Amino acid sequence: MTYCVAVAVDDGLVFLSDSRTNAGVDHISTFRKMSFFEEPGEGVLVIMGSGNLSITQSVIGALQERQGSPQGLLHQKSMAWAVQAVCQAVRDVYHRDAESLRQHGLDFNPEFIIGGEFRGEPPRLFHVYAAGNFIESTPETRYFQIGEAKYGKPIIDRVIQAETSLPAAAKCLLVSMDSTLRSNLTVGMPLDLAIVRRGELRVTLHRSIGPEDEYWNTIREGWAAALRDVFHSLPDLPLPAPPPAGS
Amino acid sequence: MTYCVAVAVDDGLVFLSDSRTNAGVDHISTFRKMSFFEEPGEGVLVIMGSGNLSITQSVIGALQERQGSPQGLLHQKSMAWAVQAVCQAVRDVYHRDAESLRQHGLDFNPEFIIGGEFRGEPPRLFHVYAAGNFIESTPETRYFQIGEAKYGKPIIDRVIQAETSLPAAAKCLLVSMDSTLRSNLTVGMPLDLAIVRRGELRVTLHRSIGPEDEYWNTIREGWAAALRDVFHSLPDLPLPAPPPAGS
Repeated sequence: MTYCVAVAVDDGLVFLSDSRTNAGVDHISTFRKMSFFEEPGEGVLVIMGSGNLSITQSVIGALQERQGSPQGLLHQKSMAWAVQAVCQAVRDVYHRDAESLRQHGLDFNPEFIIGGEFRGEPPRLFHVYAAGNFIESTPETRYFQIGEAKYGKPIIDRVIQAETSLPAAAKCLLVSMDSTLRSNLTVGMPLDLAIVRRGELRVTLHRSIGPEDEYWNTIREGWAAALRDVFHSLPDLPLPAPPPAGS
Repeated sequence: MTYCVAVAVDDGLVFLSDSRTNAGVDHISTFRKMSFFEEPGEGVLVIMGSGNLSITQSVIGALQERQGSPQGLLHQKSMAWAVQAVCQAVRDVYHRDAESLRQHGLDFNPEFIIGGEFRGEPPRLFHVYAAGNFIESTPETRYFQIGEAKYGKPIIDRVIQAETSLPAAAKCLLVSMDSTLRSNLTVGMPLDLAIVRRGELRVTLHRSIGPEDEYWNTIREGWAAALRDVFHSLPDLPLPAPPPAGS
């Protein structure tokens, strides 16, 4: 299973992904789900994928092969064109693989979150589906999740707004991931955290977060302890008195 | 959609259900999903159901018709026998309705949470599935959820322990419901909250909670405000300084 999430705030974009694939009793693998396409000063794209790993790797591989050529993602006219190039790569893999996968009972189920910034455009965030169709985030819906989304959704709904700072958005996504990791064992560490600050046209920060990461543990333990304190500080519902002994 | 949840703690049982069925743009209905079977001093059962309303109502209706007769739930030898009587009622409705439902593209999908206490037994909590099979809660897994379970699961995992008091468990379930209501519009008020305190052999408290309920709003608003405070009190991840202007 997978959990990937990205948010768009006024100051830029934040991305977070886990790295667990094929989780099971005796076969747990760790693969990166976050890929970077970067030409500093020209543009930057961060892509996260969920679904069958052979499909998502085929899509990303095809895109990486074109890097530097006129067909490369960062040589497209705009970010929307780059996203359409990703969609075409999804459809190419579909035409090559989907029928064979189906014969073996496997779904063609990739999804991608793509965010970044091209010179002359604001930062933008997209969600690409298996059919090669896509949607873009809006001021009303500033985040996308793929994979095991529900456990970590409430904290994002409560916290993220346009004015949320990039560090606060990163903190929010880490709390969201923590709730997901606690509830679904098939989502696993290490995590990839990336930040693209508006106007820099590069990956501002990429941090691979393992179980020993100091900041991760500060957030994780601080959040758990504070939640318990907050919970106990809220008033209890008064209950009727128990019946007198012997009644 | 539905969200029902119940927890077993040392002091007794707490139940919470929403009341929204068939949510859609132009057809939103409100039906109780919680039913009580009570013979004070002898035993008490609380049953919550999810799935197609015609199925859950048929099951509960059949059980209610037997109330007071030797086949009544509270005349069974133990709580486990009462749960098996519920399972038999599920299978009876399956044999009567499932084929016709299937012809109209409808699943036979009821699930029930059943909790209560019989004289001479501790409080017990069960989860009944559509096939009429069931599981019982354990010290390691003290709660069951049916319906839209994921949004509200993290807070339960963080808070509920054997020693949790009944009022604190009720508070926890209300926070869990609040997270669900915020994330899924098809789960709706009013809520039914019920508490069965160990040894009382009756429904200790039943509260129907509408949007104006004072305690509900205290918890809902207090939790939202405190979460935001806690969130902002946790340290931010330091970001690299932006490149100097003109670089």
